[in-house]
Amino acid sequence: MTLSRATTPEAVRRLSRKLRSRGKRLALVPTMGALHEGHLSLVRLAARDADRVMVSLFVNPLQFGPQEDLGSYPRDTRRDLGLLAGEPVDAVYLPTGETMYPEGFAARVTVSGLDSRLEGAARPGHFVGVCTVVLKLLNAVEPDVLWLGQKDAQQCAVLERLVRDLDLPVRVKRGPTVREPDGLAMSSRNAYLNPEERAQAPALFQALRLAQAAARSGERDPGALRALVSGHLAGAPLARLEYVEVVDARTLEPLARVAGDVLVALACRIGPARLIDNVRFRVAEPGAAR
Amino acid sequence: MTLSRATTPEAVRRLSRKLRSRGKRLALVPTMGALHEGHLSLVRLAARDADRVMVSLFVNPLQFGPQEDLGSYPRDTRRDLGLLAGEPVDAVYLPTGETMYPEGFAARVTVSGLDSRLEGAARPGHFVGVCTVVLKLLNAVEPDVLWLGQKDAQQCAVLERLVRDLDLPVRVKRGPTVREPDGLAMSSRNAYLNPEERAQAPALFQALRLAQAAARSGERDPGALRALVSGHLAGAPLARLEYVEVVDARTLEPLARVAGDVLVALACRIGPARLIDNVRFRVAEPGAAR
Repeated sequence: MTLSRATTPEAVRRLSRKLRSRGKRLALVPTMGALHEGHLSLVRLAARDADRVMVSLFVNPLQFGPQEDLGSYPRDTRRDLGLLAGEPVDAVYLPTGETMYPEGFAARVTVSGLDSRLEGAARPGHFVGVCTVVLKLLNAVEPDVLWLGQKDAQQCAVLERLVRDLDLPVRVKRGPTVREPDGLAMSSRNAYLNPEERAQAPALFQALRLAQAAARSGERDPGALRALVSGHLAGAPLARLEYVEVVDARTLEPLARVAGDVLVALACRIGPARLIDNVRFRVAEPGAAR
Repeated sequence: MTLSRATTPEAVRRLSRKLRSRGKRLALVPTMGALHEGHLSLVRLAARDADRVMVSLFVNPLQFGPQEDLGSYPRDTRRDLGLLAGEPVDAVYLPTGETMYPEGFAARVTVSGLDSRLEGAARPGHFVGVCTVVLKLLNAVEPDVLWLGQKDAQQCAVLERLVRDLDLPVRVKRGPTVREPDGLAMSSRNAYLNPEERAQAPALFQALRLAQAAARSGERDPGALRALVSGHLAGAPLARLEYVEVVDARTLEPLARVAGDVLVALACRIGPARLIDNVRFRVAEPGAAR
């Protein structure tokens, strides 16, 4: 499939309007490039759901903290475009930093509350950067559907709230986390791991599955689930747990009791990489506390 | 002209899409109701420029500070609709507070820098409220043109920056300030004035005109212009000047020298009313300082 390309908001708007002509529905898959199967699975889901698919590739400086990995974040646009050429993608948006944030850029978008927990607490300003760039992408591309990956569960919750609060004319859909055969969630940052670190990285998802299994077996104490996770990660000495939280999957509020729509989310450092992962599950409670 | 009405974001989006069908261009005139000739002049300008005109009427609680006049702000929707029925308006958007800010509403939009001077300094959080509500209106209505009044010069500058920074697919146009025969800028808050206060209110614009005349006569010292304004207002004892600033009309930065695109803006309390006004003019300087 030939990929149309645009590099400025004006050009992508023209391109998008062409793609959407005669009532065609357009899906946007925003990415920071360094594409992997997680991104490509979103592209395929998007293509099954809409008539046209656009992928944006932009390493957004606004969502990186000063001590973070903006400089080392993997960039290989040629490889990304090669991967997308084999997928059901109609267009690619490749804005430059100067186009996105010209001299004097001053707008900021926040979702208070949701953006200060978990990743927001660990990465101050991160979700302001995410919300601001995604709003810019939505305004320039005007898609009918926005596809996000469940691996970034909090990002999904924040952006769903943003879309709802700001009356944005777009539907948000989530694609499931795609994993390596050993369970490690696909991430562009997995490339930072050396073989030894990579060998211990599957412990993250193993730990989350232990927590999920415990909940399924009746454990209702969030502290017990968190202890299971940190206990399992103690067996992976290269992994330094930053946080593990048991929260309501929609509000991201900590749960006093494991019930309802549950998200167990963690962040972990392994070597130079900071990795996140989560499991989401529903715990139905008929009647009172047991 | 029959006025179509919508009261929710979903309904106004459907209505807007109908109005914009077959390539018709839609203009939005956002107001807080309590309409006067200033609003109506924007409506007429909008109608000359676009095919369809929508007016929104919404007293936005988010842009009022806790000590401000949200409770007493004049509201008379029936009168407003009566006025609009005589104007070239196709549709009215009358959202409710619950529709705009439902339980859990958490999004906020800011334009840093521009939003902290002048009115922003005097009314902390004011422009966050303005930006957030206007972004919601733009997203729900999806107009081609947004009409704003020059009386709120800083609001114009902030929203123009918001539209540019966020890649919003809308053009912003400004309509000139409409004045009473004695020069007082039209404002819904003029209704707060008793006859004695009303009699002194024209001093605001008189003072601004003195400053403009001085600049035209060669005065290049911003402090001298400000002194002219406060000196003239000393003759209106019921008017308490809150600020008068001489700034660049686009960046709102204070000018060290009266030159370029100049805005002289003031805020004044008269009785229970807090009134603002401004003059904007260009000072061309061929060559060096005199």
